[in-house]
Amino acid sequence: MQHDVLIDGVEADGSWLSERALQYGDGLFETIAVVDGQPRLWAAHMARLAEGCRRLRLPVPDFHNLASECRHLCAGHSRAVVKILWTAGRSERGYRRPEPLSPQRVLRRSTWPVPQPNFGWIVRQCRHRLSENPALAEIKHLNRLDQVVARTEWDDPAIDEGLMLGQDGRVVCGTMSNLFLQRGGCLATPAVDRAGVAGVVRDLVIKVAEEAGQRVSVEAVSLDEVRKADALFLTNSLIGVVRVRRYDSTDYDLSLSENAVMSQARYRCHHDLPEALGDE
Amino acid sequence: MQHDVLIDGVEADGSWLSERALQYGDGLFETIAVVDGQPRLWAAHMARLAEGCRRLRLPVPDFHNLASECRHLCAGHSRAVVKILWTAGRSERGYRRPEPLSPQRVLRRSTWPVPQPNFGWIVRQCRHRLSENPALAEIKHLNRLDQVVARTEWDDPAIDEGLMLGQDGRVVCGTMSNLFLQRGGCLATPAVDRAGVAGVVRDLVIKVAEEAGQRVSVEAVSLDEVRKADALFLTNSLIGVVRVRRYDSTDYDLSLSENAVMSQARYRCHHDLPEALGDE
Repeated sequence: MQHDVLIDGVEADGSWLSERALQYGDGLFETIAVVDGQPRLWAAHMARLAEGCRRLRLPVPDFHNLASECRHLCAGHSRAVVKILWTAGRSERGYRRPEPLSPQRVLRRSTWPVPQPNFGWIVRQCRHRLSENPALAEIKHLNRLDQVVARTEWDDPAIDEGLMLGQDGRVVCGTMSNLFLQRGGCLATPAVDRAGVAGVVRDLVIKVAEEAGQRVSVEAVSLDEVRKADALFLTNSLIGVVRVRRYDSTDYDLSLSENAVMSQARYRCHHDLPEALGDE
Repeated sequence: MQHDVLIDGVEADGSWLSERALQYGDGLFETIAVVDGQPRLWAAHMARLAEGCRRLRLPVPDFHNLASECRHLCAGHSRAVVKILWTAGRSERGYRRPEPLSPQRVLRRSTWPVPQPNFGWIVRQCRHRLSENPALAEIKHLNRLDQVVARTEWDDPAIDEGLMLGQDGRVVCGTMSNLFLQRGGCLATPAVDRAGVAGVVRDLVIKVAEEAGQRVSVEAVSLDEVRKADALFLTNSLIGVVRVRRYDSTDYDLSLSENAVMSQARYRCHHDLPEALGDE
């Protein structure tokens, strides 16, 4: 039988090439911290996954299944990272999804990154800007070229993260994190309704603020506002909450970054979530 | 050994999950018509692939290799479609590309779609709009959720294609084709510098017009202009050039769509390229 696939010149069984996640990025993912077998911020991850399914018109996975598979995969690991992919499954060539659709759930465990001493992150400005589309904003879909291209802009290991702008030049988020600004005791975070991801720790911070009778202002944020903030924080599922020490040529006084809401959110992450360097 | 991957609940060897094309859509593709072992519009496909590499900061593949592998794969097939993927290769989790990068070239042959009698295409308007980003426009990258979501909007087999709008409400292209408008003997095509793909047949039409001393106007195109055009044409690598018979509730008089440039471009496609229904 003549093969119909060549991979790097070698005839191959390329059945996995039919996966629409590979052909088109047709799917969603979540990157989850699992501590002592317990996935952290599970409800928030699953809520975002459900919203992603609604937007991409994919069926919703069985969350109970996902949770037990997540625990099974992490049995015996005190700390692990589980990446869940929920894909549109396989099909012939063509943007049209097959009928019936056979979505695939893929769970992959990886090791928890080695914890680094954290004296605040050093952050740079990315030149590559985020694609803009309200229909694909907020959700964690598999079309991540913006983040990949932005991440190619530096390889200095001293730089922890890069901030990304939207098409209008406003600051939206980091390549793998959400941003919070502190100004005179008040917190703000960029809107992610046109680009960016609605992070689960971002949501936690907003919730913690609400519980404390405060409000995080979700707004359009200019580069100038970022430079003039008293303090900056970055959030994601694996790092929890980290402070920013330097952003391009602007240094931040870490002694100013003692904000009750961020501290409480950090505590609630750290209580569940050991401090470590993460990605995504 | 404990596996670190579950696919639909089953422990699996998920080494292919490391492919960055699957994790992030980190790569490019081309869909090429191959007739009697000869890939058609090869130079144009390779030029777009090279531009994609430049934009995504990927190394450029060896085009000579690609061409001979394409021919090898299609030996003995009078007509075939070859999809070439040029991906960033495998890596651990994380947006950052590994150093050194090991890009993969994947060629997959599929059967030429069964030719359909073509009395002009029936086209609808898509609600899902294209993401906007000049840095990712024009090239054929693997982040194709816009096209996938737009293609979920209909399953009526009588509808051949859907037109997509940009964020500003202007018409950009079809889900798998480029658009040309004819107005009083002059041709226009929507600009694709903020969204959309610079199709190889689109380029051919522009070139044929130039050779004939004419100019295709590349411009912002409104829905109203599409409705009022004398004739509409759609182009892609597999279909070549097709006329539009109906767009939503607007019918077009096919007898008006005898344009010398489009006829010549169609001839040059058909001379190389048997008429058939295509996708992408």
